[in-house]
Formats: sequence, structure tokens, C-alpha cells
Amino acid sequence: MEKKKNISMAVIKRLPKYYRYLSDLLKNDVDRISSKELGEKIGFTASQIRQDLNCFGDFGQQGYGYNVRELHAQISNILGIHKKYKSIIVGAGNIGQALANYSNFRDLGVEAVGIFDANPKLIGMKIRDIEIRDIDEFPEYVKNNCVDIGIICVPSRNAQTVCDELTACGIKAIWNFAPIDLTTPDDVVVENVHLSESLLTLVYLANQKHQ
Amino acid sequence: MEKKKNISMAVIKRLPKYYRYLSDLLKNDVDRISSKELGEKIGFTASQIRQDLNCFGDFGQQGYGYNVRELHAQISNILGIHKKYKSIIVGAGNIGQALANYSNFRDLGVEAVGIFDANPKLIGMKIRDIEIRDIDEFPEYVKNNCVDIGIICVPSRNAQTVCDELTACGIKAIWNFAPIDLTTPDDVVVENVHLSESLLTLVYLANQKHQ
Repeated sequence: MEKKKNISMAVIKRLPKYYRYLSDLLKNDVDRISSKELGEKIGFTASQIRQDLNCFGDFGQQGYGYNVRELHAQISNILGIHKKYKSIIVGAGNIGQALANYSNFRDLGVEAVGIFDANPKLIGMKIRDIEIRDIDEFPEYVKNNCVDIGIICVPSRNAQTVCDELTACGIKAIWNFAPIDLTTPDDVVVENVHLSESLLTLVYLANQKHQ
Repeated sequence: MEKKKNISMAVIKRLPKYYRYLSDLLKNDVDRISSKELGEKIGFTASQIRQDLNCFGDFGQQGYGYNVRELHAQISNILGIHKKYKSIIVGAGNIGQALANYSNFRDLGVEAVGIFDANPKLIGMKIRDIEIRDIDEFPEYVKNNCVDIGIICVPSRNAQTVCDELTACGIKAIWNFAPIDLTTPDDVVVENVHLSESLLTLVYLANQKHQ
């Protein structure tokens, strides 16, 4: 598959959306779709869709459009969903527990194999079939269990320390829910979910609209 | 305060980050900061920071920098944090319960006043001091309680219906955690938290980096 280098983050951030829409089309037994129709569903222009997908290879056929199953498989492949990933959750508070309970991620190939917390009241409790362990045990666990992704759900004051420990154990992918920006080595990728910032954006937009 | 029209979404999305960093500076008793120092903390250039803040008014002073308390107050004002907002959570599953338990939002002026679910096993349960009510009751509740924000945490198959009901009751701001793109009237703002898409972005980036 031909692939352009230096794909912009904006395009990358749209890929999961394509994947989601194509999954829905597959579920509804749609065999093929034009860039125009796909664009109308997603809310992009047909030309945007063609441009985006051209970054990753030569999909679709003039006059036919996209074969849904094929494009779904290819995007799944580009995203890396065909592989399996092990993750651990550090911090078993509200968000950590919610993530541990959330089954959708397993469908995306990401399984939570461990969950850790510092609170003695939580240690030993089970979420699904995973026992919450002492936070001090996660470095050893990561080393012994080929963990791919570290999910940080501790309060912000502890998040950088946890991040440092995760990367010291060889973790290269961090999903960060703590409301801080983490510093990591260059070969580590971080994806932030900053809920407070999302809520503030909503509040701002609502105020602007209704002044 | 002078204010430019048509501020880009990119700038708007950075505002909560400024607010967060300024809150930290305030907590650490920092009185003033230059755009260069603030830039180094946040990871933006000094010029980016000056440009961003200039969209909203005339902050800072050549040779002095920014007065932290003043800038914090002004950004808080721009974001609308000085007001109070009532929200309801529709869907008391993992994410809905985590959000109801999350105290940070109260500090931002957003309080969850009601939580609703269709599951009879959940109805009547309390989260903090809020009783989970029958999902059928939320339209009546919204009408009687001046609710500002609807938080959608139901499965994607029900999310559009819930959204339609929320907007029909006059809700103008939707915080959506369901993995679909909602259709709303023009005067309604929606902010999405699409966790699966965030996780897929992480997986993609990790794969690219370590191929």
C-alpha cells in the first residue's frame, strides 16, 4: 500500500470517524458508497474525503465509489485495529473504574489486563474479573506482562510520576485522563482526554451563541 | 472589552488550557508572567500566545507581561466560568456515574442536578446525593428546573432520541459521550467526547512510531 509521509494530525484524527461510519454501514449491509454519500453522512465534502483517504493509499474507483467492506478493512489495518493490545489502568477512581467496565474498547482490540490504585479500600476489589492491585506493583506487572498502553486516571498531582514510571518500564503509548500535560521521552505517544477542557469549551460556545 | 468576531475553533479550544495553566500559577502565588514564560510552560510560542489572547482583548503590557490574577479573571470571564450552570446526566452507566461522581466540574460552575436511566435496577439508587430517576421523567424535570446542559451518556442507538428530547425542552448545550454525531437545531451547541476515537488515535500513533 502506497502511503504518504507526514500525514497531518487533522487527517489522523478523522480516521477513527471514518472507521466508525464504515462500521455502521457494514452493520447495515451497505456494499458500496460514493465519496459524496459518505461525505453527507459524516458531514464532510466529497473532496475532503477523497483527499483524506488518498493520504493512505489508492482507495475507491471512479464511477463506483468505495467498496465498504474493503475500505473498512483497510482503515482498520491503517489504524492498527487488527492487532491486540494490552493496557493497564493506573487510578481506580471514577473514571478509571468506568474505563475498566467499558466493553467497547475490547472490540477495538484494547484489553484492560490490570488496574492499580493507592487507596487500600480499593485494593482487592474486583472490576469485571480484574482485581485492583496496589499501585506500587504496576512497574513489575508491566515488565512481566508485555503491556502496550498505560491509561492514567490518577489525580493530576501524581500523573507525571505515574507517567515517568510507565515509560521507564517501556510503555510507549499513554492515554491520559489527568488534567495536565505530561512530559515524555520522544518515542512515547500521548493522547489526552481532558474532560474539564471539553466542558469549558461547551460552556464558552453556549455563552457565545446565546448572549 | 474589545473582541474580535469569528474566533477560530482552534483558538477557542486552547482557552481552557490557558485557564488551567493560569489557575496553577495562581495556586503557586505567581503574580506575573511573560508570554515567553507562559509559552514555555504550555508548549506554545510566545507569539502564538499573544495572538491567541489578542482575539479576546488587550491583555498584557510590553515589558511587564501578564498580571496572572487579572488574566485568570478575564479568561474565566470569557469562558463564562463566573456563572453557574445546571446540568443533567442522561444515562447512568459507567461513564454517567463517573461524571456524576466527578467533583471537578462543580469548580468550573457546572453542577449535575439530575441523573436519569431506563434501567429499573438503577432507578432509585443514589450517586452522591442525587437519586437516579426514570429516563421518562427528564423532559418534565428540565422544564421545571432551568437546566442549562444535557450530558448524554446513553448507548449510541438511543443518543439521538435523547438529544431530540433535550433540545425540545429548550436545552441549548449538549455534552455528548455517545459514539455518534448528533443532529441538532442550529442554536444548540454540541461538544463530543468520543473515547473510542481517542483510543484509536493513540493506537494509530503508537503503531506509526514503532513500525
